Amino acid sequence: MSTPLTVGNTRVKEARKLSRRSVRTERRLFLADGPKAVEGALAVDGCVVEVFATPLALEQHADLLAGATVTLVDDRALASLSDSVSPAGLVALCRHIDAPLDRVLDVSARLLAICADVRDPGNAGNVIRTADAAGADAVVLAGSSVDAYNPKTVRSTVGSLFHLPFAVEADPAVVVRAAQARGLTVLAADGAGEVDLFDAHLSGPTAWLFGNEAWGLPDELAALADHRVAIPIHGRAESLNLSTAAAVCLYASARAQRA
Amino acid sequence: MSTPLTVGNTRVKEARKLSRRSVRTERRLFLADGPKAVEGALAVDGCVVEVFATPLALEQHADLLAGATVTLVDDRALASLSDSVSPAGLVALCRHIDAPLDRVLDVSARLLAICADVRDPGNAGNVIRTADAAGADAVVLAGSSVDAYNPKTVRSTVGSLFHLPFAVEADPAVVVRAAQARGLTVLAADGAGEVDLFDAHLSGPTAWLFGNEAWGLPDELAALADHRVAIPIHGRAESLNLSTAAAVCLYASARAQRA
Repeated sequence: MSTPLTVGNTRVKEARKLSRRSVRTERRLFLADGPKAVEGALAVDGCVVEVFATPLALEQHADLLAGATVTLVDDRALASLSDSVSPAGLVALCRHIDAPLDRVLDVSARLLAICADVRDPGNAGNVIRTADAAGADAVVLAGSSVDAYNPKTVRSTVGSLFHLPFAVEADPAVVVRAAQARGLTVLAADGAGEVDLFDAHLSGPTAWLFGNEAWGLPDELAALADHRVAIPIHGRAESLNLSTAAAVCLYASARAQRA
Repeated sequence: MSTPLTVGNTRVKEARKLSRRSVRTERRLFLADGPKAVEGALAVDGCVVEVFATPLALEQHADLLAGATVTLVDDRALASLSDSVSPAGLVALCRHIDAPLDRVLDVSARLLAICADVRDPGNAGNVIRTADAAGADAVVLAGSSVDAYNPKTVRSTVGSLFHLPFAVEADPAVVVRAAQARGLTVLAADGAGEVDLFDAHLSGPTAWLFGNEAWGLPDELAALADHRVAIPIHGRAESLNLSTAAAVCLYASARAQRA
């Protein structure tokens, strides 16, 4: 077995630079941290360049890493690649996997989640995880949404980043129009919406449009949607957390589509 | 106007000690940070001892603070009381407001959320916020759940901590049995549950039992519930985030109870 690379090694240093969005975007690479993420990444053809692992993690995750290109690193080098408080010992260097919008808006898509300006990495990751669970066909990160390859986003998807196709598109309006052109009804999740979620017609092909955590959807964008749909608030809460609201909407659709 | 207290002032120092759970528990006091939380706290009779505010915040939130006992502090003193990255300038010193389990399990309660060993402050806070939104009558934090008065929990309830009654109980089994004794059906949210959420009978009085983020509900606790209910996973996600799952369950109940 080769000697584990240390924190000063050039390959480790280069990989560490991927903590910066600009470097990730330029190189079209990112890091997937921990066994769930690494497992997900390895299941996607051509995604993983190499897996950095400590000797202990290689032993613990021998099945998972069988057949993968593994580079041994010591604990400190591994920790320098992980943004986790207690790194699990393995981090995959991955190629970007976002798909073109066209492919994501496949003619057979029946349930889609569009994030417009979702800024919190945990929220974006959780929407992707929930979309996966609810059986959505794809996710689009639009506008000024957080980078899908942000380490916190990747971690909060708990592997789902690798499970369903996603696209990145600067202009949310382009996504809305493209979804409508493919026959999807676009529903804007909007606390002030005129349709109650549980009165909405959800059995047809649907694209949900979710806005920013703090200020929601810009009016001109929500106006492009076919309907604005509100989750009823029965108590005294002013609103729901963004990813919580997305979960309630996506599961309402899943239920109606599969009834 | 009196001179703002500085970071070295004894009252500020004493209040700062409330960042520790042991001190909060002993004194039955806690801090509510930011305008939403302060507004919620002020609406609860006898909850607020005093509000620490910077001169600027007092000016900005004059309506909110009208009638409240306000203690002026300078920016540094305020920041020392806030765990927020960008403090909003006002923090209320509050008395604990948890109610006895008996009162929370009022005979008229129709929807309840019980957290058993929910450890993440953000998750617990988000469950409280969502329970409020879904019109639940109360929340119980049971077992080794995070302190309801943890600053991160308080913040993630976005004011809902003050909107609906909640109780704290060391033994989750006691809560389950007490809820059943009051005629509530106890449903354990459990990914391996035998009942599909969307097939479950949810129109009657219901108490949802949610477990720990990582390991779920202990078998012996879940066995006390009337049914184990699973949210269907249609995609390849292994599970849902705890507070996301709670939202889907609570809204399924709200919908059925109000149909």
